[in-house]
Amino acid sequence: MSSQGANGTSHGHFDPHFNPLHLSITGIGVEYPPYDLVPGDLDKLVAKHYPETPAMKKICAINRFTGIESRSSIGPSDHSIANGETPPGIDTLCKVWLEYGVPLSVTAAKKAMKEAGLKPEDITHMVSTTCTNSANPGFDHFVAKELGLSNSVEKVLLHGVGCSGGLAAVRTASNLALGARFRRRKARVLVLACEISTVMVRSELDSINESQGTRIGVCLFSDCASSLIMSNGLGDSGEEMAGHEDPIYEYLAYDHRILPDTEQDLGFDVHPLGWKVILSPRVPSLAQGSVAPAFKALLASMGDQLPEDYQKPQDFDWALHPGGATILTGVEKAMGVSSEHMRASYATYMAHGNSSSATIMSVMDRMRHKDMDDMAPGGKVKEYVVGCAFGPGISVEVCMLKRNLSHGKGEGQRASTSLGGEITPPETDSEGSLPDEEALKDAKQEKDLERMLEGVELD
Amino acid sequence: MSSQGANGTSHGHFDPHFNPLHLSITGIGVEYPPYDLVPGDLDKLVAKHYPETPAMKKICAINRFTGIESRSSIGPSDHSIANGETPPGIDTLCKVWLEYGVPLSVTAAKKAMKEAGLKPEDITHMVSTTCTNSANPGFDHFVAKELGLSNSVEKVLLHGVGCSGGLAAVRTASNLALGARFRRRKARVLVLACEISTVMVRSELDSINESQGTRIGVCLFSDCASSLIMSNGLGDSGEEMAGHEDPIYEYLAYDHRILPDTEQDLGFDVHPLGWKVILSPRVPSLAQGSVAPAFKALLASMGDQLPEDYQKPQDFDWALHPGGATILTGVEKAMGVSSEHMRASYATYMAHGNSSSATIMSVMDRMRHKDMDDMAPGGKVKEYVVGCAFGPGISVEVCMLKRNLSHGKGEGQRASTSLGGEITPPETDSEGSLPDEEALKDAKQEKDLERMLEGVELD
Repeated sequence: MSSQGANGTSHGHFDPHFNPLHLSITGIGVEYPPYDLVPGDLDKLVAKHYPETPAMKKICAINRFTGIESRSSIGPSDHSIANGETPPGIDTLCKVWLEYGVPLSVTAAKKAMKEAGLKPEDITHMVSTTCTNSANPGFDHFVAKELGLSNSVEKVLLHGVGCSGGLAAVRTASNLALGARFRRRKARVLVLACEISTVMVRSELDSINESQGTRIGVCLFSDCASSLIMSNGLGDSGEEMAGHEDPIYEYLAYDHRILPDTEQDLGFDVHPLGWKVILSPRVPSLAQGSVAPAFKALLASMGDQLPEDYQKPQDFDWALHPGGATILTGVEKAMGVSSEHMRASYATYMAHGNSSSATIMSVMDRMRHKDMDDMAPGGKVKEYVVGCAFGPGISVEVCMLKRNLSHGKGEGQRASTSLGGEITPPETDSEGSLPDEEALKDAKQEKDLERMLEGVELD
Repeated sequence: MSSQGANGTSHGHFDPHFNPLHLSITGIGVEYPPYDLVPGDLDKLVAKHYPETPAMKKICAINRFTGIESRSSIGPSDHSIANGETPPGIDTLCKVWLEYGVPLSVTAAKKAMKEAGLKPEDITHMVSTTCTNSANPGFDHFVAKELGLSNSVEKVLLHGVGCSGGLAAVRTASNLALGARFRRRKARVLVLACEISTVMVRSELDSINESQGTRIGVCLFSDCASSLIMSNGLGDSGEEMAGHEDPIYEYLAYDHRILPDTEQDLGFDVHPLGWKVILSPRVPSLAQGSVAPAFKALLASMGDQLPEDYQKPQDFDWALHPGGATILTGVEKAMGVSSEHMRASYATYMAHGNSSSATIMSVMDRMRHKDMDDMAPGGKVKEYVVGCAFGPGISVEVCMLKRNLSHGKGEGQRASTSLGGEITPPETDSEGSLPDEEALKDAKQEKDLERMLEGVELD
């Protein structure tokens, strides 16, 4: 490799502070709703509302072998939204979404802002996403108002990107932050993803009952709001803040691509009862096969920015969107990495399920917790982390994060400590129980699981 | 005024090429569908499907006095989508949208790309918007595929911004282009707005029939796809292209803001039958009152970038989103400008109706046509144009455009002429008949119209 960096400066000896985009993630906040749906909850709903058919029995069987211990939800399985004569319409779903999703989003955003030491007036941009709501004004408006953000904060609400929305929002935020840097202006972008998926359970069960087909969305999807702060490293007067912020991750590079002729394989079709999941049996193999070329392009785009010992997939930790068990195990095999490399993806998936766009920031948050570090492959926590998610298109989003292993330990003082913000202590996660190493291995090695789910996985 | 520019360089003598953002609009393409709905068409639908009630009679009366001569539509009023037993569901609307909206968008985009002299592989980013579709993948995916854009083009699909979506997309495109400039990378952003609104006529008429309220969306909304190319002025190797492009407009500045506590006044609520228009009687006065502060902030953000004779509202031409007649006349009065300043907004409104987010780029296109120049106030075409639109929030988007009055006249050669692209001749508009000056005045002075529409205007 050349000793010339992407920006032309010499750094033959690796410089840990080299970050030509000057972009960092200075706060992450994740909020799951309080209810945990366990497999028996779906059994109860099915027994109460639908005839016992082979398709329903199959779904309930799959539901016991997803590897998910509980799916986070805004309500228990006996919530009225899931127990009417008929499923709620998209107008009712929208009201419920705003009622629950906005406060969840506000809490997640407040956590991220607190960790970054930011007050509402510090936020310059907001990039949000959801695929489970279509309100106008968008949900981001209501969150911004509740947070007390400026009326001139520049908002972008992404649509049409499904489970890849979280990383697409981070990518878009990075470009807005770079645009602000060109103008020598401060950018503190609040990135937000929120999905309220579990309220569509009856609509999906209706579709199963009518089609007698296998639709596994009801087994996988969950509710979550997640948020992060992307900083462009400039202060109020356009001055460099280097050394005054304490990044959790630096955001170094991204790659975004569409897999040709796959738009019929993965989708989320709008319907009077919400959105209906579309997926084909090709999804797991398409997803698996797409990671190696995206990873290669990501590394190529970075020139010689990475040190010599970060070149192969197993040199990195992986924050993969846990779409389903066969996605996790499939990418593992395809990339030659272990479940320990993807430990944060497994842990998030098992404890909470697939919360679509909101999941990836939860994985990025989970990655930095001490119990995850204790499970690192060979006991070595990686400094570089690959983020990866899939969505309708099929779109593949990858990014390169550099983890600050000294975060919160006093190296790299935050300018914001004077604001009174506390650093969220990584060791005090709000989750009551964390999956241990054995549980991860059990989930991964569950042969029944792999057989059950083959060909019926989600993004 | 100081002689120091916003970027600190001295330009006491005004430099016509001064453009610190280096952003220009190098192609615009607008495509209206072939059908024109005239007032009698709504009468026919009402007579065929609904009982004669005071509310229906009132809507049909208002419909004759909107100032709109015809609303562009994907089909005639006897199209099956508007003549079923019941209105179509949002799933059917989505299919119809993709069937008609994607080809319309492709045609608009091709026009813009052709004028800019760009091939599909030149497009680096795509920023799209719609408030009448919620497909996943988003409609932009299908347009990109049809255009043959790269699978790694960076796409952003805006949601939740309604009629302000066109200018919000242009603003977002400008920030992405600046981000690319920071990285010394070429950006040619395809900006696209498409709305298929007329297919929701039966849903709106149903609501009128049920509520016996006054809902005027059916009188105003129309279908359109519009597109433009935003260039950041860098070539394939990051070299400056100054002097090699022939901008239609330079994009100089923007201001974006939310009017506090107005989210209940203007909206577009998702519903099993599509989206339902929400507006309060406060909308026209809120909109009118918001333009002066936004205009003032826009000018302030530009420092001394504007020449001395461009300071007051009437010094500029105005590309205002023509939400309705009272919006046009109200902003005219509030800002002390004439209908001639807003001639392109009137012409677009009268010939095609309000096509929501897609309208503003149509107005920007219309502004540069020779027949519009002939109607300029005092015979003087303005070099600077204020763009302005309102949307749910209520959001107010304004921008400052500098019109290249030599566009297409050989001054400022396009690097792209070698690609064989032809410049769209401004004099050959696809519209068969253009409103003449008398018609504009008639519409403006129509007192019945103003009385009828008072308090029932749309964004």
